[in-house]
Amino acid sequence: MKIGLGQINAVVGDLAGNVSRMVDCYNRAVEADVDLLIFPELATCGYPPEDLLSKKEFVEDNRASVEKLAADCPETRIIAGFPESYKGSLYNSAAVLEAGKIKEVYRKRLLAHYSVSDERKYFKAGSKPVLIEVGGLKIALTICYDILEIARLKEFLKEVGPFEVLVNISASAFHLGKTEARKKSIINCVKEFNSTVAYCNLVGGQDELVFDGRSILADSSGKIAATAAAFREDLLIADIISTEDGVKVKPVDSAREEPSGPVDEVYQALVLGVRDYVRKNGFEKVLLGLSGGIDSSVSVCIAAAGLGARKVIGITMPSRFNSSETIADANQLAENLGIEFLTIPIDDILEASDNSLAVFEGWDKESIAFENLQARIRGNILMSLSNSMGGLVLTSGNKSESAVGYATLYGDTAGGFSPLKDVPKTLVYKLAEHINAKSGSQLIPESVIRRAPSAELSFNQKDTDSLPDYSLLDRILQGYVEENKSAKELIAEGIDAEVVRKVIRMVDANEYKRRQSPPGVKITPRALGRDRRLPITNRYY
Amino acid sequence: MKIGLGQINAVVGDLAGNVSRMVDCYNRAVEADVDLLIFPELATCGYPPEDLLSKKEFVEDNRASVEKLAADCPETRIIAGFPESYKGSLYNSAAVLEAGKIKEVYRKRLLAHYSVSDERKYFKAGSKPVLIEVGGLKIALTICYDILEIARLKEFLKEVGPFEVLVNISASAFHLGKTEARKKSIINCVKEFNSTVAYCNLVGGQDELVFDGRSILADSSGKIAATAAAFREDLLIADIISTEDGVKVKPVDSAREEPSGPVDEVYQALVLGVRDYVRKNGFEKVLLGLSGGIDSSVSVCIAAAGLGARKVIGITMPSRFNSSETIADANQLAENLGIEFLTIPIDDILEASDNSLAVFEGWDKESIAFENLQARIRGNILMSLSNSMGGLVLTSGNKSESAVGYATLYGDTAGGFSPLKDVPKTLVYKLAEHINAKSGSQLIPESVIRRAPSAELSFNQKDTDSLPDYSLLDRILQGYVEENKSAKELIAEGIDAEVVRKVIRMVDANEYKRRQSPPGVKITPRALGRDRRLPITNRYY
Repeated sequence: MKIGLGQINAVVGDLAGNVSRMVDCYNRAVEADVDLLIFPELATCGYPPEDLLSKKEFVEDNRASVEKLAADCPETRIIAGFPESYKGSLYNSAAVLEAGKIKEVYRKRLLAHYSVSDERKYFKAGSKPVLIEVGGLKIALTICYDILEIARLKEFLKEVGPFEVLVNISASAFHLGKTEARKKSIINCVKEFNSTVAYCNLVGGQDELVFDGRSILADSSGKIAATAAAFREDLLIADIISTEDGVKVKPVDSAREEPSGPVDEVYQALVLGVRDYVRKNGFEKVLLGLSGGIDSSVSVCIAAAGLGARKVIGITMPSRFNSSETIADANQLAENLGIEFLTIPIDDILEASDNSLAVFEGWDKESIAFENLQARIRGNILMSLSNSMGGLVLTSGNKSESAVGYATLYGDTAGGFSPLKDVPKTLVYKLAEHINAKSGSQLIPESVIRRAPSAELSFNQKDTDSLPDYSLLDRILQGYVEENKSAKELIAEGIDAEVVRKVIRMVDANEYKRRQSPPGVKITPRALGRDRRLPITNRYY
Repeated sequence: MKIGLGQINAVVGDLAGNVSRMVDCYNRAVEADVDLLIFPELATCGYPPEDLLSKKEFVEDNRASVEKLAADCPETRIIAGFPESYKGSLYNSAAVLEAGKIKEVYRKRLLAHYSVSDERKYFKAGSKPVLIEVGGLKIALTICYDILEIARLKEFLKEVGPFEVLVNISASAFHLGKTEARKKSIINCVKEFNSTVAYCNLVGGQDELVFDGRSILADSSGKIAATAAAFREDLLIADIISTEDGVKVKPVDSAREEPSGPVDEVYQALVLGVRDYVRKNGFEKVLLGLSGGIDSSVSVCIAAAGLGARKVIGITMPSRFNSSETIADANQLAENLGIEFLTIPIDDILEASDNSLAVFEGWDKESIAFENLQARIRGNILMSLSNSMGGLVLTSGNKSESAVGYATLYGDTAGGFSPLKDVPKTLVYKLAEHINAKSGSQLIPESVIRRAPSAELSFNQKDTDSLPDYSLLDRILQGYVEENKSAKELIAEGIDAEVVRKVIRMVDANEYKRRQSPPGVKITPRALGRDRRLPITNRYY
C-alpha cells in the first residue's frame, strides 16, 4: 500500500485556497499511484481558527470544502482534518474521503488545551475510535494530541482490534525541543501497537506560530523511516509493506535535508514566520529601522532571507547620540544585503519636540522621557513611511528586552511584526554567527557582534547600565518565564538574590507593555504573550 | 440565623491585602452578630488570576491566606473562595471556616469557560456536593456558574437532601443585561429548591473586567429580598428565618440605591473601571488629550468622576486643522471640571517631521499618512508627559472606531487604559447627556454634543467621509460583533448589502490594530479583544 503525507501550508480562513493546495497535492499523489493520501489537522481552515469557529457559516463552509475536496479527488483514499458540526456539537474531526464522498469521520478524543491551544473552548471531545482498511491494511485514526497519553490511547483503541498503520494528523507548532518530544510519542506508539505510524503535520507561519512540518513515517521496528521537509511544503511518499517481521516503511524518494542544529532550526522558523506573516497578510515589502546594533542586524537578515532583498527597506535614523561606527555598520550591512537604504536624521524633529514640551515645567532633557521621545520619533517615522508605501514595519526587540520592559512603548516596539520577539538576546548573538557562517561571508559586520550593546539614546549609554549582563539575565529569564521557577528556586540555584528579585520585578511590572506589542514567532516552549497570560493589574510578587 | 454577604473589592495577587479586607468585614459582621459570613469566589487572590495559577508558590500562598483568615476570624462561620491544590489537581474552591480552622471545602463543579473565562484551562471540576449547618439551618454550597444549569444542579444536589439556604459565591463581571440573567438564575434556584439563595458577588475593576457587586438575597417565596450596593464594597446583612410558609429573608439595613438605568450602569462601570485600574496599578494621576470632541470629553468626565479633578490633566494639542470652536470647547470643559489644562501646539513638530520625511520621494502631504503623523505626534507628546510625571495616559477611542480601525495605531490609540474601548459611539452620546443630567449643568458644552464628529486631521474632515452614519454603523457592529451574525443575516434584516460588506471587511482587516490597543472596560456582552479571539492572519470573509 502506498501512502502519501501531504504536508501543506494552509492559510487560516482560506478554505478555497487550502482545498486547492490539497487538490494540487492529490494530483501529484495520483501520478505516483498513492493509495492513501493524508492531510494535516483542520487542513480545510488552517490552525488555529480561534473564534472563527463561533461562526455558524464558517463551520458550514468547512463541510462544503471537505465535500468539494472529496468530489475533486475521487481516485485515492484521503484523510483530511476539518472542524465538524455533528449532532449540535463542534468536533475537531478527520474525514475519510472515498470515491468522491465523505465515507467516515473520526472525532478527536484528547483536546489540546495548554499554552497557546484552547481547544476545549471550542470543541467537544470525540469518543469513538475509527478503523479503515486500505490495500489490505488496517488503519487506525488519531488526531495530534490523541497519541500523547499512550495508556489511554491503548484503552481507547482496544475495541478496534489490531492494525498495521496508526495515522496521526497534526497541527503541531515548532518550539525548541519539540521534535524530540514528538518523535518520542511516535516511537511509543510504534512499540505499543507494533504498527507503523504515519504522522502528517502542518507547515507554515500563522501569526505567532510556525508549524515546522517534518511529517514522519515510523516503522514497526521502532525506527523513523522517513521525515518530510522542515519548514516547507512537501509530499512524502512511501510503501507500507506487511511482512512476517512486522510492518515496514519503504520511502520512495531520497531523504530530505534536516536543519543543522537548534540555531539553524530557530533561524529557519524565523525566516518562515516572517515570510508567511508578510505574504499571507498581503504586504509587498517590509521596512525596518537599522541602528547598527545586533537586533536590527539579525532582523534584517532574516527579512531578506525570507522575502528577498528587493522587498526589504532599511532606514537609519541617527541623532547626535549615535556613533559614527554604528551608522557605518548599518550602512555596510544594507550594502552587503543589497537592500534599499534610507537615512532620515531625527535631530530637527527632536529639537522641535523638545521645544514644544518645554511648556511643561517638569520637562527634563536628561531624563528617560527624553530617551523615550527619540525612540518614539523613530517609530513615528517608520510608521509614516509604512503608511506611505504600504509596507509592514518589522520591529527588532528581543525576548530579553521585552521580558524586562527595556523598550519604549510606541517607540522601538512600534510595528506590525516582531521577528525576534521570542528570541533571548544570547541566542540573537548565536543567530548572527549562524547567519554569517551560512552566508560564508561577514554579512553582519564583525563590529556589530563585538560591540557592547547600547540603545544609543544618551551619550556613552550601555545596556548594562540598567540591566544585568545578558548571559545572567537570560539565565534568570529562562528559569522564571520558560521553566516557571520561583525566585526562591532561582536563588537556591546560586544566582544572586537581589538580581533575581530585581529581574522578576521588572518582568512582572512590564506586562502592560507586552500586552501592546506586535506579534512575533514563538520559538521557545513558553513565549511572552498569549502563551503566558498574566494579569496587568497584579500585586503578586 | 444571621447571614452577611461580604462584597469585597479584591486586588488580583494581593493576598495579604485581600485577607485584610475580609478581616475588616468580619469585624463589622461580628459586631452585628452575624452567624455566617460569605465572601466571593477566589476571594483570597482576586479574579481572574490567569497564569498566576501556574505558579506552585502562588497556590501554596493562597492556602496560607485562607488559613490566616480562619485564624484571624474565629467567631463566625465563614465561606470564602480560594484556588486549591488537592490530590495533585487544582480546584476553584470554597473553604468553610470554623473556630479558626478550615472545616470543609467545596470544589466548583461547573467551570466557566466562555468569553473571557478560561477556567477549564486551569481547574479540574469538583464532583462532591457539600452541605453545612449553621444556626439550625441546612446550607448547600455552590460557586458562580454551578447554578446556571438548574436540571444538572438538582441532580448534583440530590444526595444532600433538602436545605434552607443555597449559597453561591461568585465573581461575575458586569455587562449590559447581565443582572437580569443573574436574577433569573437565582429565582430558578429559589423555585426549584424552595430555599433562600445567598449570592455573594465580587466588586471592583480588574484590567478589562468590572465586577459590579449587587450581591443578592432571595426569598423562598421567589422574590429578591435584598440587593447589596452596585459598583462599591458592601456588607449586606439579613436574618434568615425558617417559617411554616418557607424560608424568609429579613434585611437588617435599608435598601441600597440602584443605578437609574442601563446608561447609568455603564457610567458607573466605567468610573469604577478607570478608578480601580489607576489605583490598583499605583498611578497618582492620569492625562488625556482633549480635542473638544465627544469621545475625549466623555472620557475626561469619567476620569474626573473616578479620581477627582485634581488627579486629571487635560492636554490640547492643536494644529492648523483644528477649528477655534473645538479648541474653545476643550478649554471650557477643562474649566468646568476644574482640571489642570496644558496647551502644546504640534505645528512645529509637524513641520520638522514633514521636512525630514520629504527625503522619501513618495511622501505626500495630502495623504492619510500625513493625517496619521499628526495623531502620532500627539501620542508622542502625551507619552513624553506621562514618562515625565509618572501619570497614566487615557485614550479616548470608542468601540465603533476600534471595530472598523478608524484610529491611528501609536497615535490616538497610544495610552495605558481606554475607558470607552467597549462603548459604541451612539452610547458615547447617551453618556454625554447622562453626565450633563447628573451634574445638573452643561458640564460638557452643548456644541461638543451637537457638532458632526471629525478627527480634524485635514480641513473640513468629517467621520462620515470614511464611515457610514454612526447609528447605522453601530447597528451593523452590534449584529456582527456582539450577536455574531453573518453578513447574510444582516442583509436579510434589510441593511444595505454593500454597507454591511464594507463594514465587516473593515472589522476583519483591523484585528492587528486592536491586538496592540490598550485595555479598557468591558460593558457589552462581547467586547473586542480577549472576548473575541480572531486570528490576524485570516482570509475568511
